[in-house]
Amino acid sequence: MTAPLRLHYAPDNASLILRLALEELGLDYEAVLVDRKTQGQTAPHYLRMNPNGTIPVLETPDGAMFETAAILLWLADRERRLLPAPEAPARGRCLTWLFWCSNTLHIDLRQSFYPEKYIGDDRAHQAQLRAMLRGRLQNDLRMIDTALRQAPALAGGDQPTVLDLYLPCLLRWTKLYADPPEAPWFDLAAYPALLHVCQRAETRASTHAAQRAEGLGATPFTAPILATPPEGSAT
Amino acid sequence: MTAPLRLHYAPDNASLILRLALEELGLDYEAVLVDRKTQGQTAPHYLRMNPNGTIPVLETPDGAMFETAAILLWLADRERRLLPAPEAPARGRCLTWLFWCSNTLHIDLRQSFYPEKYIGDDRAHQAQLRAMLRGRLQNDLRMIDTALRQAPALAGGDQPTVLDLYLPCLLRWTKLYADPPEAPWFDLAAYPALLHVCQRAETRASTHAAQRAEGLGATPFTAPILATPPEGSAT
Repeated sequence: MTAPLRLHYAPDNASLILRLALEELGLDYEAVLVDRKTQGQTAPHYLRMNPNGTIPVLETPDGAMFETAAILLWLADRERRLLPAPEAPARGRCLTWLFWCSNTLHIDLRQSFYPEKYIGDDRAHQAQLRAMLRGRLQNDLRMIDTALRQAPALAGGDQPTVLDLYLPCLLRWTKLYADPPEAPWFDLAAYPALLHVCQRAETRASTHAAQRAEGLGATPFTAPILATPPEGSAT
Repeated sequence: MTAPLRLHYAPDNASLILRLALEELGLDYEAVLVDRKTQGQTAPHYLRMNPNGTIPVLETPDGAMFETAAILLWLADRERRLLPAPEAPARGRCLTWLFWCSNTLHIDLRQSFYPEKYIGDDRAHQAQLRAMLRGRLQNDLRMIDTALRQAPALAGGDQPTVLDLYLPCLLRWTKLYADPPEAPWFDLAAYPALLHVCQRAETRASTHAAQRAEGLGATPFTAPILATPPEGSAT
Protein backbone atom coordinates (compact mmCIF):
# COMPACT_ATOMS: atom_id res chain seq x y z
CA MET A 1 0.00 0.00 0.00
CA THR A 2 1.43 3.37 -0.99
CA ALA A 3 1.20 6.40 1.23
CA PRO A 4 -1.70 8.63 0.23
CA LEU A 5 -1.36 12.01 -1.40
CA ARG A 6 -2.16 14.78 1.09
CA LEU A 7 -3.14 18.18 -0.31
CA HIS A 8 -2.69 21.03 2.15
CA TYR A 9 -5.28 23.50 0.93
CA ALA A 10 -7.29 26.58 1.68
CA PRO A 11 -10.60 27.15 -0.14
CA ASP A 12 -10.20 29.02 -3.43
CA ASN A 13 -6.42 29.31 -2.98
CA ALA A 14 -3.87 28.05 -5.52
CA SER A 15 -4.52 24.60 -4.06
CA LEU A 16 -7.76 24.63 -6.09
CA ILE A 17 -5.70 24.00 -9.23
CA LEU A 18 -4.33 20.83 -7.69
CA ARG A 19 -7.69 19.69 -6.36
CA LEU A 20 -8.94 19.89 -9.95
CA ALA A 21 -5.92 17.86 -11.11
CA LEU A 22 -6.33 15.20 -8.41
CA GLU A 23 -10.04 14.90 -9.20
CA GLU A 24 -9.50 14.87 -12.96
CA LEU A 25 -6.87 12.14 -12.60
CA GLY A 26 -9.12 10.14 -10.28
CA LEU A 27 -6.43 9.91 -7.62
CA ASP A 28 -7.07 9.05 -4.01
CA TYR A 29 -6.08 12.01 -1.84
CA GLU A 30 -6.72 13.59 1.50
CA ALA A 31 -7.43 17.34 1.69
CA VAL A 32 -5.98 18.93 4.83
CA LEU A 33 -7.23 22.43 5.63
CA VAL A 34 -4.66 25.17 6.18
CA ASP A 35 -6.39 27.64 8.48
CA ARG A 36 -5.61 31.04 7.00
CA LYS A 37 -7.41 32.84 9.84
CA THR A 38 -4.67 31.65 12.20
CA GLN A 39 -1.92 31.95 9.53
CA GLY A 40 -1.56 28.18 9.37
CA GLN A 41 0.75 28.56 6.38
CA THR A 42 3.40 30.07 8.66
CA ALA A 43 3.20 27.41 11.39
CA PRO A 44 6.53 25.63 11.99
CA HIS A 45 5.31 22.23 10.77
CA TYR A 46 4.02 23.85 7.57
CA LEU A 47 7.22 25.80 6.94
CA ARG A 48 9.18 22.57 7.30
CA MET A 49 7.28 21.26 4.27
CA ASN A 50 7.29 24.60 2.42
CA PRO A 51 9.72 27.29 3.64
CA ASN A 52 8.05 29.65 1.19
CA GLY A 53 4.87 29.64 3.30
CA THR A 54 2.64 29.43 0.24
CA ILE A 55 -0.44 27.26 -0.23
CA PRO A 56 -0.54 24.46 -1.45
CA VAL A 57 1.76 21.69 -0.34
CA LEU A 58 1.32 18.16 -1.66
CA GLU A 59 2.71 15.39 0.51
CA THR A 60 3.72 12.50 -1.73
CA PRO A 61 5.40 9.14 -1.17
CA ASP A 62 8.60 10.92 -2.28
CA GLY A 63 8.24 13.77 0.24
CA ALA A 64 6.49 17.12 0.35
CA MET A 65 6.34 19.29 -2.75
CA PHE A 66 5.34 22.91 -3.15
CA GLU A 67 4.97 25.25 -6.15
CA THR A 68 1.58 24.66 -7.77
CA ALA A 69 2.84 24.30 -11.34
CA ALA A 70 5.65 21.95 -10.31
CA ILE A 71 3.13 19.67 -8.61
CA LEU A 72 0.77 19.90 -11.59
CA LEU A 73 3.60 18.82 -13.89
CA TRP A 74 4.68 16.06 -11.52
CA LEU A 75 1.15 14.65 -11.29
CA ALA A 76 0.64 14.85 -15.05
CA ASP A 77 3.87 12.98 -15.80
CA ARG A 78 3.16 10.40 -13.10
CA GLU A 79 -0.25 9.61 -14.59
CA ARG A 80 0.72 10.22 -18.24
CA ARG A 81 -2.25 12.49 -18.74
CA LEU A 82 -2.91 16.25 -18.94
CA LEU A 83 0.41 16.87 -20.72
CA PRO A 84 2.06 15.46 -23.86
CA ALA A 85 4.59 12.69 -23.11
CA PRO A 86 8.27 13.69 -22.88
CA GLU A 87 8.91 12.58 -26.46
CA ALA A 88 5.79 14.14 -28.00
CA PRO A 89 6.30 17.13 -30.30
CA ALA A 90 3.59 19.12 -28.52
CA ARG A 91 5.31 18.92 -25.12
CA GLY A 92 7.66 21.86 -25.58
CA ARG A 93 4.91 24.32 -26.34
CA CYS A 94 2.83 23.08 -23.42
CA LEU A 95 5.78 23.43 -21.01
CA THR A 96 6.45 26.92 -22.32
CA TRP A 97 2.96 28.09 -21.48
CA LEU A 98 2.84 26.22 -18.17
CA PHE A 99 5.94 28.09 -17.00
CA TRP A 100 4.57 31.33 -18.42
CA CYS A 101 1.34 30.85 -16.44
CA SER A 102 3.42 30.27 -13.31
CA ASN A 103 5.92 33.11 -13.61
CA THR A 104 3.97 35.74 -15.54
CA LEU A 105 0.17 35.57 -15.34
CA HIS A 106 0.03 33.99 -11.88
CA ILE A 107 2.71 36.31 -10.47
CA ASP A 108 1.10 39.43 -11.97
CA LEU A 109 -2.12 38.35 -10.28
CA ARG A 110 -0.38 37.57 -7.00
CA GLN A 111 1.14 41.02 -6.90
CA SER A 112 -2.26 42.50 -7.54
CA PHE A 113 -3.70 40.52 -4.58
CA TYR A 114 -0.83 41.31 -2.20
CA PRO A 115 0.65 44.65 -3.30
CA GLU A 116 2.00 45.24 0.22
CA LYS A 117 4.46 42.38 -0.24
CA TYR A 118 5.98 44.18 -3.23
CA ILE A 119 5.60 47.91 -2.62
CA GLY A 120 4.89 48.31 1.12
CA ASP A 121 1.94 49.82 2.97
CA ASP A 122 1.64 53.22 1.26
CA ARG A 123 -1.80 53.28 -0.39
CA ALA A 124 -0.71 55.57 -3.23
CA HIS A 125 2.19 53.26 -4.04
CA GLN A 126 -0.17 50.29 -3.98
CA ALA A 127 -2.61 52.05 -6.32
CA GLN A 128 0.22 52.82 -8.74
CA LEU A 129 1.40 49.20 -8.67
CA ARG A 130 -2.13 47.93 -9.24
CA ALA A 131 -2.60 50.30 -12.18
CA MET A 132 0.58 49.01 -13.80
CA LEU A 133 -0.46 45.44 -13.10
CA ARG A 134 -3.83 45.98 -14.74
CA GLY A 135 -1.99 46.87 -17.96
CA ARG A 136 0.31 43.86 -17.58
CA LEU A 137 -2.66 41.55 -16.99
CA GLN A 138 -4.52 42.84 -20.03
CA ASN A 139 -1.42 42.15 -22.09
CA ASP A 140 -1.00 38.69 -20.52
CA LEU A 141 -4.60 37.75 -21.27
CA ARG A 142 -4.41 38.90 -24.87
CA MET A 143 -1.21 36.89 -25.30
CA ILE A 144 -2.51 33.59 -23.93
CA ASP A 145 -5.85 33.99 -25.73
CA THR A 146 -3.99 34.42 -29.02
CA ALA A 147 -1.72 31.46 -28.26
CA LEU A 148 -4.71 29.22 -27.56
CA ARG A 149 -6.38 30.23 -30.81
CA GLN A 150 -3.19 29.50 -32.75
CA ALA A 151 -2.58 26.15 -31.03
CA PRO A 152 -5.93 24.72 -29.93
CA ALA A 153 -4.27 21.56 -28.53
CA LEU A 154 -2.91 23.65 -25.65
CA ALA A 155 -6.32 23.77 -23.97
CA GLY A 156 -10.03 23.65 -24.64
CA GLY A 157 -10.16 20.29 -26.43
CA ASP A 158 -11.84 17.01 -25.57
CA GLN A 159 -8.97 15.85 -23.37
CA PRO A 160 -8.07 18.42 -20.69
CA THR A 161 -4.49 19.57 -20.30
CA VAL A 162 -2.71 21.18 -17.37
CA LEU A 163 -3.75 24.54 -18.84
CA ASP A 164 -7.42 23.50 -18.78
CA LEU A 165 -7.08 23.24 -15.01
CA TYR A 166 -4.73 26.16 -14.35
CA LEU A 167 -6.21 28.90 -16.55
CA PRO A 168 -9.85 28.81 -15.35
CA CYS A 169 -8.65 29.30 -11.76
CA LEU A 170 -6.43 32.23 -12.74
CA LEU A 171 -9.34 33.81 -14.62
CA ARG A 172 -11.67 33.27 -11.67
CA TRP A 173 -9.23 35.12 -9.41
CA THR A 174 -8.72 37.85 -11.99
CA LYS A 175 -12.45 38.57 -11.85
CA LEU A 176 -12.84 38.22 -8.10
CA TYR A 177 -9.69 39.92 -6.84
CA ALA A 178 -8.09 42.01 -9.61
CA ASP A 179 -11.14 43.63 -11.20
CA PRO A 180 -12.43 46.25 -8.77
CA PRO A 181 -16.20 46.89 -9.03
CA GLU A 182 -15.59 50.64 -8.94
CA ALA A 183 -13.25 50.45 -11.97
CA PRO A 184 -13.91 47.20 -13.82
CA TRP A 185 -11.71 46.30 -16.77
CA PHE A 186 -11.94 42.52 -17.12
CA ASP A 187 -14.50 40.98 -19.47
CA LEU A 188 -13.92 37.28 -20.08
CA ALA A 189 -16.01 37.47 -23.26
CA ALA A 190 -13.30 39.68 -24.78
CA TYR A 191 -11.01 36.63 -24.81
CA PRO A 192 -12.90 34.00 -26.82
CA ALA A 193 -10.42 31.15 -26.37
CA LEU A 194 -10.23 31.74 -22.62
CA LEU A 195 -14.02 31.91 -22.40
CA HIS A 196 -14.22 28.58 -24.20
CA VAL A 197 -11.72 27.01 -21.79
CA CYS A 198 -13.80 28.22 -18.84
CA GLN A 199 -17.04 26.97 -20.36
CA ARG A 200 -15.53 23.53 -20.99
CA ALA A 201 -14.15 23.45 -17.46
CA GLU A 202 -17.61 24.02 -16.00
CA THR A 203 -18.87 20.84 -17.70
CA ARG A 204 -16.29 18.56 -16.06
CA ALA A 205 -16.92 16.32 -13.04
CA SER A 206 -13.60 17.45 -11.53
CA THR A 207 -14.92 21.00 -11.40
CA HIS A 208 -18.21 19.86 -9.87
CA ALA A 209 -16.31 18.05 -7.13
CA ALA A 210 -14.28 21.19 -6.40
CA GLN A 211 -17.42 23.34 -6.40
CA ARG A 212 -18.90 21.15 -3.69
CA ALA A 213 -15.71 20.86 -1.65
CA GLU A 214 -14.85 24.56 -1.66
CA GLY A 215 -18.23 26.28 -2.10
CA LEU A 216 -17.44 27.84 -5.46
CA GLY A 217 -21.02 28.44 -6.66
CA ALA A 218 -22.76 27.46 -9.90
CA THR A 219 -20.49 29.16 -12.46
CA PRO A 220 -17.07 29.31 -10.81
CA PHE A 221 -15.15 30.33 -13.92
CA THR A 222 -17.49 32.12 -16.32
CA ALA A 223 -19.29 34.21 -13.67
CA PRO A 224 -17.57 33.66 -10.31
CA ILE A 225 -18.80 34.77 -6.92
CA LEU A 226 -16.84 34.71 -3.67
CA ALA A 227 -16.52 31.20 -2.25
CA THR A 228 -18.71 30.09 0.66
CA PRO A 229 -16.70 27.07 1.72
CA PRO A 230 -17.91 24.42 4.16
CA GLU A 231 -14.63 24.76 6.09
CA GLY A 232 -11.86 27.34 6.25
CA SER A 233 -11.60 30.66 4.44
CA ALA A 234 -10.06 31.92 1.23
CA THR A 235 -8.18 34.82 2.79
CA MET B 1 19.40 14.56 -40.24
CA THR B 2 17.48 16.47 -37.59
CA ALA B 3 17.09 20.23 -37.67
CA PRO B 4 19.64 21.95 -35.42
CA LEU B 5 18.81 23.69 -32.19
CA ARG B 6 18.99 27.47 -32.61
CA LEU B 7 19.42 29.56 -29.47
CA HIS B 8 18.35 33.18 -29.88
CA TYR B 9 20.54 34.92 -27.33
CA ALA B 10 21.95 38.20 -26.09
CA PRO B 11 25.18 38.17 -24.08
CA ASP B 12 24.66 37.73 -20.36
CA ASN B 13 20.88 37.57 -20.76
CA ALA B 14 18.73 34.66 -19.53
CA SER B 15 19.88 32.83 -22.66
CA LEU B 16 23.17 32.27 -20.80
CA ILE B 17 21.44 29.61 -18.69
CA LEU B 18 20.54 27.70 -21.85
CA ARG B 19 23.98 28.12 -23.39
CA LEU B 20 25.36 26.46 -20.28
CA ALA B 21 22.83 23.65 -20.64
CA LEU B 22 23.52 23.11 -24.35
CA GLU B 23 27.28 23.06 -23.67
CA GLU B 24 26.94 20.80 -20.64
CA LEU B 25 24.82 18.36 -22.63
CA GLY B 26 27.26 18.48 -25.54
CA LEU B 27 24.50 19.33 -28.00
CA ASP B 28 25.10 20.81 -31.41
CA TYR B 29 23.49 24.24 -31.58
CA GLU B 30 23.66 27.55 -33.36
CA ALA B 31 23.69 30.78 -31.35
CA VAL B 32 21.81 33.60 -33.10
CA LEU B 33 22.38 37.08 -31.69
CA VAL B 34 19.36 39.16 -30.72
CA ASP B 35 20.51 42.75 -31.10
CA ARG B 36 19.24 44.51 -27.99
CA LYS B 37 20.52 47.88 -29.21
CA THR B 38 17.90 47.78 -31.97
CA GLN B 39 15.31 46.02 -29.76
CA GLY B 40 15.62 42.84 -31.80
CA GLN B 41 13.44 41.04 -29.25
CA THR B 42 10.45 43.10 -30.41
CA ALA B 43 10.94 42.55 -34.15
CA PRO B 44 7.94 40.88 -35.82
CA HIS B 45 9.80 37.67 -36.69
CA TYR B 46 10.98 37.36 -33.09
CA LEU B 47 7.53 38.01 -31.63
CA ARG B 48 6.13 35.28 -33.87
CA MET B 49 8.41 32.85 -32.03
CA ASN B 50 7.90 34.48 -28.63
CA PRO B 51 4.99 36.91 -28.21
CA ASN B 52 6.36 37.70 -24.76
CA GLY B 53 9.37 39.44 -26.35
CA THR B 54 11.77 37.92 -23.82
CA ILE B 55 15.20 36.44 -24.51
CA PRO B 56 15.85 33.51 -25.12
CA VAL B 57 14.01 31.52 -27.72
CA LEU B 58 15.12 28.01 -28.62
CA GLU B 59 14.13 26.78 -32.05
CA THR B 60 13.76 23.01 -31.92
CA PRO B 61 12.67 20.33 -34.39
CA ASP B 62 9.28 20.58 -32.63
CA GLY B 63 8.98 24.36 -33.04
CA ALA B 64 10.11 27.42 -31.13
CA MET B 65 10.05 27.42 -27.34
CA PHE B 66 10.43 30.28 -24.90
CA GLU B 67 10.55 30.51 -21.10
CA THR B 68 14.07 29.69 -19.91
CA ALA B 69 13.10 27.16 -17.28
CA ALA B 70 10.69 25.37 -19.60
CA ILE B 71 13.47 24.95 -22.15
CA LEU B 72 15.90 23.84 -19.46
CA LEU B 73 13.44 21.17 -18.34
CA TRP B 74 12.73 20.11 -21.92
CA LEU B 75 16.43 19.73 -22.71
CA ALA B 76 17.10 17.84 -19.49
CA ASP B 77 14.30 15.35 -20.11
CA ARG B 78 15.30 14.94 -23.77
CA GLU B 79 18.86 14.03 -22.80
CA ARG B 80 18.01 12.27 -19.53
CA ARG B 81 20.56 14.33 -17.64
CA LEU B 82 20.55 17.36 -15.31
CA LEU B 83 17.29 16.26 -13.69
CA PRO B 84 16.09 13.06 -12.00
CA ALA B 85 14.03 10.83 -14.33
CA PRO B 86 10.23 11.13 -14.16
CA GLU B 87 9.99 8.08 -11.88
CA ALA B 88 12.89 9.01 -9.56
CA PRO B 89 11.97 10.00 -5.99
CA ALA B 90 14.20 13.09 -6.19
CA ARG B 91 12.37 14.56 -9.16
CA GLY B 92 9.57 16.25 -7.24
CA ARG B 93 11.89 18.26 -5.06
CA CYS B 94 13.99 19.31 -8.05
CA LEU B 95 10.90 20.44 -9.99
CA THR B 96 9.70 22.38 -6.95
CA TRP B 97 12.90 24.41 -6.79
CA LEU B 98 13.14 24.81 -10.57
CA PHE B 99 9.70 26.45 -10.63
CA TRP B 100 10.56 28.47 -7.53
CA CYS B 101 13.71 29.78 -9.26
CA SER B 102 11.61 30.73 -12.27
CA ASN B 103 8.67 32.42 -10.56
CA THR B 104 10.24 33.76 -7.36
CA LEU B 105 14.00 34.40 -7.41
CA HIS B 106 14.20 35.12 -11.14
CA ILE B 107 11.10 37.34 -11.12
CA ASP B 108 12.23 39.27 -8.02
CA LEU B 109 15.50 39.92 -9.86
CA ARG B 110 13.75 40.86 -13.08
CA GLN B 111 11.64 43.44 -11.27
CA SER B 112 14.75 44.83 -9.72
CA PHE B 113 16.35 45.18 -13.19
CA TYR B 114 13.26 46.67 -14.86
CA PRO B 115 11.28 48.48 -12.13
CA GLU B 116 9.67 50.73 -14.74
CA LYS B 117 7.77 47.73 -16.13
CA TYR B 118 6.11 47.21 -12.74
CA ILE B 119 5.79 50.62 -11.09
CA GLY B 120 6.24 53.18 -13.89
CA ASP B 121 8.77 55.98 -14.37
CA ASP B 122 8.56 57.79 -11.02
CA ARG B 123 12.01 57.49 -9.43
CA ALA B 124 10.71 57.51 -5.86
CA HIS B 125 8.30 54.70 -6.68
CA GLN B 126 11.13 52.75 -8.29
CA ALA B 127 13.36 53.25 -5.24
CA GLN B 128 10.58 51.99 -2.97
CA LEU B 129 10.04 48.93 -5.16
CA ARG B 130 13.77 48.20 -5.22
CA ALA B 131 13.99 48.50 -1.44
CA MET B 132 11.17 45.99 -1.02
CA LEU B 133 12.78 43.69 -3.59
CA ARG B 134 16.09 43.78 -1.74
CA GLY B 135 14.31 42.35 1.30
CA ARG B 136 12.56 39.75 -0.85
CA LEU B 137 15.83 38.74 -2.50
CA GLN B 138 17.59 38.37 0.84
CA ASN B 139 14.79 36.11 1.96
CA ASP B 140 14.88 34.15 -1.32
CA LEU B 141 18.63 33.58 -1.06
CA ARG B 142 18.43 32.42 2.54
CA MET B 143 15.67 30.02 1.58
CA ILE B 144 17.44 28.36 -1.35
CA ASP B 145 20.74 28.26 0.54
CA THR B 146 19.03 26.40 3.38
CA ALA B 147 17.27 24.06 0.96
CA LEU B 148 20.56 23.16 -0.73
CA ARG B 149 22.21 22.41 2.59
CA GLN B 150 19.29 20.18 3.59
CA ALA B 151 19.18 18.36 0.23
CA PRO B 152 22.67 18.42 -1.30
CA ALA B 153 21.51 16.39 -4.32
CA LEU B 154 19.64 19.46 -5.58
CA ALA B 155 22.89 21.13 -6.71
CA GLY B 156 26.61 21.28 -6.02
CA GLY B 157 27.40 17.59 -6.45
CA ASP B 158 29.58 15.75 -8.93
CA GLN B 159 26.84 15.57 -11.55
CA PRO B 160 25.37 18.99 -12.34
CA THR B 161 21.61 19.52 -12.21
CA VAL B 162 19.43 22.18 -13.79
CA LEU B 163 19.94 24.22 -10.62
CA ASP B 164 23.73 24.06 -11.06
CA LEU B 165 23.23 25.95 -14.31
CA TYR B 166 20.39 28.25 -13.31
CA LEU B 167 21.48 29.46 -9.87
CA PRO B 168 25.01 30.71 -10.72
CA CYS B 169 23.56 32.93 -13.43
CA LEU B 170 20.92 34.35 -11.09
CA LEU B 171 23.61 35.03 -8.49
CA ARG B 172 25.83 36.70 -11.09
CA TRP B 173 23.00 39.05 -12.01
CA THR B 174 22.16 39.69 -8.37
CA LYS B 175 25.69 40.98 -7.87
CA LEU B 176 25.93 42.92 -11.13
CA TYR B 177 22.47 44.44 -11.36
CA ALA B 178 20.68 44.26 -7.99
CA ASP B 179 23.49 45.19 -5.58
CA PRO B 180 24.18 48.91 -6.01
CA PRO B 181 27.79 49.91 -5.23
CA GLU B 182 26.55 52.87 -3.18
CA ALA B 183 24.46 50.60 -0.95
CA PRO B 184 25.76 47.04 -1.26
CA TRP B 185 23.90 44.25 0.54
CA PHE B 186 24.78 41.05 -1.33
CA ASP B 187 27.69 38.93 -0.13
CA LEU B 188 27.80 35.50 -1.78
CA ALA B 189 30.00 34.20 1.05
CA ALA B 190 27.05 34.65 3.42
CA TYR B 191 25.32 31.80 1.56
CA PRO B 192 27.73 28.86 1.82
CA ALA B 193 25.77 26.39 -0.31
CA LEU B 194 25.29 28.96 -3.05
CA LEU B 195 28.97 29.89 -2.92
CA HIS B 196 29.84 26.22 -3.33
CA VAL B 197 27.51 25.90 -6.34
CA CYS B 198 29.19 28.92 -7.96
CA GLN B 199 32.67 27.60 -7.25
CA ARG B 200 31.82 24.23 -8.77
CA ALA B 201 30.28 25.93 -11.80
CA GLU B 202 33.51 27.82 -12.48
CA THR B 203 35.40 24.52 -12.83
CA ARG B 204 33.18 23.17 -15.61
CA ALA B 205 34.00 23.21 -19.33
CA SER B 206 30.48 24.40 -20.11
CA THR B 207 31.15 27.55 -18.11
CA HIS B 208 34.50 28.08 -19.84
CA ALA B 209 32.78 27.87 -23.22
CA ALA B 210 30.20 30.45 -22.15
CA GLN B 211 32.91 32.72 -20.74
CA ARG B 212 34.60 32.77 -24.14
CA ALA B 213 31.40 33.14 -26.16
CA GLU B 214 29.91 35.95 -24.07
CA GLY B 215 32.97 37.69 -22.56
CA LEU B 216 32.11 36.88 -18.96
CA GLY B 217 35.59 37.29 -17.43
CA ALA B 218 37.64 34.96 -15.23
CA THR B 219 35.25 34.47 -12.29
CA PRO B 220 31.77 34.94 -13.75
CA PHE B 221 29.88 33.64 -10.71
CA THR B 222 32.01 34.12 -7.59
CA ALA B 223 33.26 37.63 -8.49
CA PRO B 224 31.49 38.80 -11.64
CA ILE B 225 32.32 41.84 -13.72
CA LEU B 226 30.22 43.30 -16.53
CA ALA B 227 30.45 41.25 -19.72
CA THR B 228 32.63 42.40 -22.61
CA PRO B 229 31.11 40.22 -25.33
CA PRO B 230 32.63 39.69 -28.77
CA GLU B 231 29.24 40.50 -30.32
CA GLY B 232 26.07 42.19 -29.14
CA SER B 233 25.32 43.76 -25.79
CA ALA B 234 23.79 42.69 -22.49
CA THR B 235 21.33 45.59 -22.25
